[in-house]
Amino acid sequence: MILTQTQGSFELLTNETAIALIQKLELLDKDATLTCRKIGAGPFNYVFHVADNATNKGVIIKQAVPYAKGLGESESWPLTLKRAAIEADALLTFGSYCPEYVPKVYYADKQLAITVMEDLSHVKIARTGLIEGENYPLLSQHIGEYAAKTLFYTSDYYLESTTKKEIARAFTNPELRKIIESSIFTGPFFEHTPTDVETLWNDHELKLEVAKLKKIFMSEQEALLHGDLHTGHILANESETKVIAPEIAFYGPIGFDTGQFIANLLFQAVTCEDADQEIILSHIQTFWSTFTDVYSTLWNNESRDAFKNIDGLLSYVLQKAKADSFGFAGWELIRKTSGLSHVIDLDGIDHMDQRINVKTNALILGTHLVKNRSTLDIPTVIELVQQVTRSSYSTL
Amino acid sequence: MILTQTQGSFELLTNETAIALIQKLELLDKDATLTCRKIGAGPFNYVFHVADNATNKGVIIKQAVPYAKGLGESESWPLTLKRAAIEADALLTFGSYCPEYVPKVYYADKQLAITVMEDLSHVKIARTGLIEGENYPLLSQHIGEYAAKTLFYTSDYYLESTTKKEIARAFTNPELRKIIESSIFTGPFFEHTPTDVETLWNDHELKLEVAKLKKIFMSEQEALLHGDLHTGHILANESETKVIAPEIAFYGPIGFDTGQFIANLLFQAVTCEDADQEIILSHIQTFWSTFTDVYSTLWNNESRDAFKNIDGLLSYVLQKAKADSFGFAGWELIRKTSGLSHVIDLDGIDHMDQRINVKTNALILGTHLVKNRSTLDIPTVIELVQQVTRSSYSTL
Repeated sequence: MILTQTQGSFELLTNETAIALIQKLELLDKDATLTCRKIGAGPFNYVFHVADNATNKGVIIKQAVPYAKGLGESESWPLTLKRAAIEADALLTFGSYCPEYVPKVYYADKQLAITVMEDLSHVKIARTGLIEGENYPLLSQHIGEYAAKTLFYTSDYYLESTTKKEIARAFTNPELRKIIESSIFTGPFFEHTPTDVETLWNDHELKLEVAKLKKIFMSEQEALLHGDLHTGHILANESETKVIAPEIAFYGPIGFDTGQFIANLLFQAVTCEDADQEIILSHIQTFWSTFTDVYSTLWNNESRDAFKNIDGLLSYVLQKAKADSFGFAGWELIRKTSGLSHVIDLDGIDHMDQRINVKTNALILGTHLVKNRSTLDIPTVIELVQQVTRSSYSTL
Repeated sequence: MILTQTQGSFELLTNETAIALIQKLELLDKDATLTCRKIGAGPFNYVFHVADNATNKGVIIKQAVPYAKGLGESESWPLTLKRAAIEADALLTFGSYCPEYVPKVYYADKQLAITVMEDLSHVKIARTGLIEGENYPLLSQHIGEYAAKTLFYTSDYYLESTTKKEIARAFTNPELRKIIESSIFTGPFFEHTPTDVETLWNDHELKLEVAKLKKIFMSEQEALLHGDLHTGHILANESETKVIAPEIAFYGPIGFDTGQFIANLLFQAVTCEDADQEIILSHIQTFWSTFTDVYSTLWNNESRDAFKNIDGLLSYVLQKAKADSFGFAGWELIRKTSGLSHVIDLDGIDHMDQRINVKTNALILGTHLVKNRSTLDIPTVIELVQQVTRSSYSTL
């Protein structure tokens, strides 16, 4: 059961008030002695872990903070509150279609920007784990399923038209979207031109194709997206996978979510050694085949669209999703390699020559993906990664 | 100045209360003796003309009625109220960008579903005029300008991202959209199969292409559309053109508006004699060239999109608009010829053989447009109309 209440004024949680909240909500054994520790203090949020040490049961409390750094500086407090509310609502929506891979939400207070959810302290941020060489054998299969379910069940092919438009309206967040759009599509080309990527900026074909991707991003509402589906927002261990932090969830093109996940795997693939690269590349293959298999099954069994049985429609939809995925993945590689945003996967590489090599490879790969997105398939992309990484290591 | 007020309960206007309202609003000379006549009583609305006979100045009052027939039977009263409110808001929005071709709104009362607007009793419904053989030499140029301005100024290429999303949210009307979507995309293929068009229903390629058009219609938000831009919603005379009744305005693909106008001209083209056909075909040409010229000028001079100067982007956007236009126009021809909806242009043809000929031509033309929309251009479409009408008149 979800309790949502609105209170008078904002107050930051302390360890003590966090425990008091959980006691009040009776989410853990009411006679238990609870302990609390702050396990996260990111730029936007505090994260508390409240647990009953006797039984080892616990819950997570996430609270948005009013003094966000970085991107958040341009945000107003009402926007931060809205971001926290969208995150809670999106977890509930995605959780209703795909409970396996979404943390359970027990309670949300939109005035205090608090979400209380399932204890996930036993799983780890996948990006960190991958960089440290950990193996998550089920990661790509789970995310493939997650993407297929969330992107099918919130689309026109499943939802009744009225419901889809009501959900889309509820998740409309114009102020935040503007910040995101401008960080994705304006900044890198027009505001920041480091000399090492100047040739990219002069690549007319690339710019035109990115402009087309921007059009798709700005105007298409295919499904409710997570919106920021990178490995830093995935918690995993050997057997479990949970997708967190859908705080910018919005209706958009489904290839944006799938493309972002692919881009994150590609970042890994261009940075790691041969043996590890093979594992990552097989993750990409598994992700896409699981996504298409599960999406196709859902389409065949659960689509309510009158046109669903028309031969060729499903493959048209999947082909578009694939082209968009490669396009958005390619742009993500370029953007994160050269722009204002960065990924720890690349910046964490100590040796400067190697870092430059890897960045060059990411740019080559990204450019190829954007330009050739409509004709590429997964085996070709994998071959491309292998070619790019091998040839450039030897020639540069 | 627009006054909007909310009153207690709904009441239908009479000639007397209509005059009293205009007097209270002081829209005409306050000492004048006003007369009122009901000039329209459609299934959804009453239309009153209130005038000062001494000066011949007047205003129009439109009021939604609570006992709508036809499509309206499935509508609830709150939905009817919303439809009237959207109409008033859309007239104001379109009028702010394109005052030449949109009636001025003086007053709107959303509770009483009343809109008071500019007197347009001197212009006539264009569809009626065209059927009667009247010549509106500026019609296509004006509608080309109207379409270019409304569809550019409400798009991502002009509006700030936040504003666009707020407008899109304000015009979201899920209940009405559902009725429209199902009447456009479900009914004809799946619920109604008159024997004379059975071959169409078995045309797999056509169905697949219509399913793709449906996807565009359902998921793309390129601009704020009129949504029902047929010649029955255009008032015209030799020098003036006004677009009325945007009561289902919504964010959608721009080719839907332009395609609907083209479809209505094509209906005319397949029904009339050679000399008149030439005039109609030149209207199609003028409409499209004006639309692209004005849209291009606005793009070059007023677009705020950072990518706007990238060579090829404008032509990509216009090419998509053209393909979508032909697709939606073709589907409109098929749908109105064979389905539940009808157009007076065709049903008004007295001689049965001729009516069947004309309908066959409309179906052939529509099917060709849908299937070949991406490669067609205006001269080819015009040639096609000439070929189809001439050959079938001689062979059938």
